[in-house]
Amino acid sequence: MNTAARVLRLLAERGRTLAVAESLTGGLVAAELTGVPGASETFRGSVTAYATALKEDLLGVDRTLLAERGAVDPEVALQMAAGVRDRLEADWGISTTGVAGPETQDGQPVGTVYVAVAGPVGAGKVAALRLNGNRAEIRRESVRSVLELLADELSGNARAQDTEQNGGN
Amino acid sequence: MNTAARVLRLLAERGRTLAVAESLTGGLVAAELTGVPGASETFRGSVTAYATALKEDLLGVDRTLLAERGAVDPEVALQMAAGVRDRLEADWGISTTGVAGPETQDGQPVGTVYVAVAGPVGAGKVAALRLNGNRAEIRRESVRSVLELLADELSGNARAQDTEQNGGN
Repeated sequence: MNTAARVLRLLAERGRTLAVAESLTGGLVAAELTGVPGASETFRGSVTAYATALKEDLLGVDRTLLAERGAVDPEVALQMAAGVRDRLEADWGISTTGVAGPETQDGQPVGTVYVAVAGPVGAGKVAALRLNGNRAEIRRESVRSVLELLADELSGNARAQDTEQNGGN
Repeated sequence: MNTAARVLRLLAERGRTLAVAESLTGGLVAAELTGVPGASETFRGSVTAYATALKEDLLGVDRTLLAERGAVDPEVALQMAAGVRDRLEADWGISTTGVAGPETQDGQPVGTVYVAVAGPVGAGKVAALRLNGNRAEIRRESVRSVLELLADELSGNARAQDTEQNGGN
């Protein structure tokens, strides 16, 4: 069973729902989840906030934070996850933001990625990734990482907030 | 050049932006577009409104329409495209709604799909598809169809503008 199917099963067993906020993965996380038959039981929907302004408008990320640190930031990732959870009325929210390349963004090098999860209790978790590879590989690895982060949270095996993953390709 | 790249080039040449509303494709249309390097020039973002209620809450689809006809409907597709165009402040909006299976939905058989496009002028266009294949094939063919529909509209729109400009009114 792949991670998407495992996550959906863990959620279904608990009667919980999920919403997704994406930036660099641009729909891939949602596509992976909705590829699983029966996903509609637990997956409510997703927002791809590709343009930075939409991270504020659609997900409620703090405008000053975006202006000061740019979109590729761990706190932005956390606010995206909490924002999509809130606005799509789901029990859990997950998010991705980062630089898939080929260009750098907001002064951050290609491969800088943050993935986050927000649940019914607590402040959420964020993982900082430094990924190698091309645009497609960085996007794919970001999808895998955010689903693994959620799976760990759901399983109760929370990772430390400063999780490091080097060159996951 | 694949259809996603062609659509993005047609939009960029005109200085136009795009937003996407997805149901059965669940993120695949956005993922296909954001797979193209430089997509951020023209692609603003997307909403996957997988839960029917989100089609109203996030995209402004008429509640009575959804209650009377269900989510798999040509007018719902048109309202999703117009709604995402409006809410994400894009020049063009495209949408997908339908039944990927394995279960039927709202009394509609698997493979019933509507894809729509809404632009700066006019009431938009919708295409009704009857697709064969499994869940993955139906989703993939829906992605291809909505991007082709937009490409046709962008090419036709350009021809109309050229005719207008060169025809001396």
